[in-house]
Amino acid sequence: MEHALRQLIRTIPDFPRPGIQFKDITPLLQDARGFRMAIDWFSLTVNAAGEVDLVAGIESRGFILGAALAARLGVGFIPLRKQGKLPAKKARVSYQLEYGNDALEMHVDAVRSGDRVALVDDLLATGGTAEAACQLLQQCGAEIVAVSFLIELDFLQGRKNIKSVKSEKIFSLIHY
Amino acid sequence: MEHALRQLIRTIPDFPRPGIQFKDITPLLQDARGFRMAIDWFSLTVNAAGEVDLVAGIESRGFILGAALAARLGVGFIPLRKQGKLPAKKARVSYQLEYGNDALEMHVDAVRSGDRVALVDDLLATGGTAEAACQLLQQCGAEIVAVSFLIELDFLQGRKNIKSVKSEKIFSLIHY
Repeated sequence: MEHALRQLIRTIPDFPRPGIQFKDITPLLQDARGFRMAIDWFSLTVNAAGEVDLVAGIESRGFILGAALAARLGVGFIPLRKQGKLPAKKARVSYQLEYGNDALEMHVDAVRSGDRVALVDDLLATGGTAEAACQLLQQCGAEIVAVSFLIELDFLQGRKNIKSVKSEKIFSLIHY
Repeated sequence: MEHALRQLIRTIPDFPRPGIQFKDITPLLQDARGFRMAIDWFSLTVNAAGEVDLVAGIESRGFILGAALAARLGVGFIPLRKQGKLPAKKARVSYQLEYGNDALEMHVDAVRSGDRVALVDDLLATGGTAEAACQLLQQCGAEIVAVSFLIELDFLQGRKNIKSVKSEKIFSLIHY
């Protein structure tokens, strides 16, 4: 299964910057069987981790996988967005990038205290964005049941940087 | 049904600019029943319009609704993105905004000639983005089966600006 999905991911050299081997998941998303298998896997691992009330996805590829998962699970979806995109009262967590800083925001009324949330993104690289997302959800009162990625770049050891949730709650389908 | 969903949409005054009454759909997305009803409606209207091979969503709220619909229909998903986000060979259509220009891009290999596609976005306002999206899909060989929006701002008459598909293929759930 992992092999079939890996074949639907293509590596684009030097995107978006020289030296980056970009993992392009669009061939997988546009493949009915591949997309369904990916959502099956997310659904399986999240259900195994526990019951969830909501799925949160990180802008913007995390929206695609997260919303499809939420639809599959029959729960609501929370978008975690880049700065300035959400219109109502929001919480923010900043984090470091290779060059400079970035921030994620969510509406403070997106979760109720104790809501069980699965966090979804396409890629676990350095873990900076994912850790910010976990902090944001927890600040707003969420309990994080699972953090699930389609791809994990093992050599970057980003898993170690997700300190807000236990390692056994972090799942990745395809490893490079 | 339309009434129940309308109650889950809130209006935020003066966002992102003074004078804009922003329709915030995040309360609907995070509501399990509301989100499910919205996807049910998309699924119903698209299925009524015809069989589809793929769902295309416009960055980035269109990713949420479009990917959930693709998962529901059991088909693949195509992201239509803002300039510079997609890594492989792509087509581009530019369009006018109130101030200046913008562009949408898609991978040229995202559809095969004759693929039947449903296009999804959250909001039909002036129709500029939607028309660009239709042109882009058609340039790449897609046949557009339906263009579906959660919300249509009737007073902007954006429907008239979607000239690339027949009006009877354009569907909106909630009208303001």
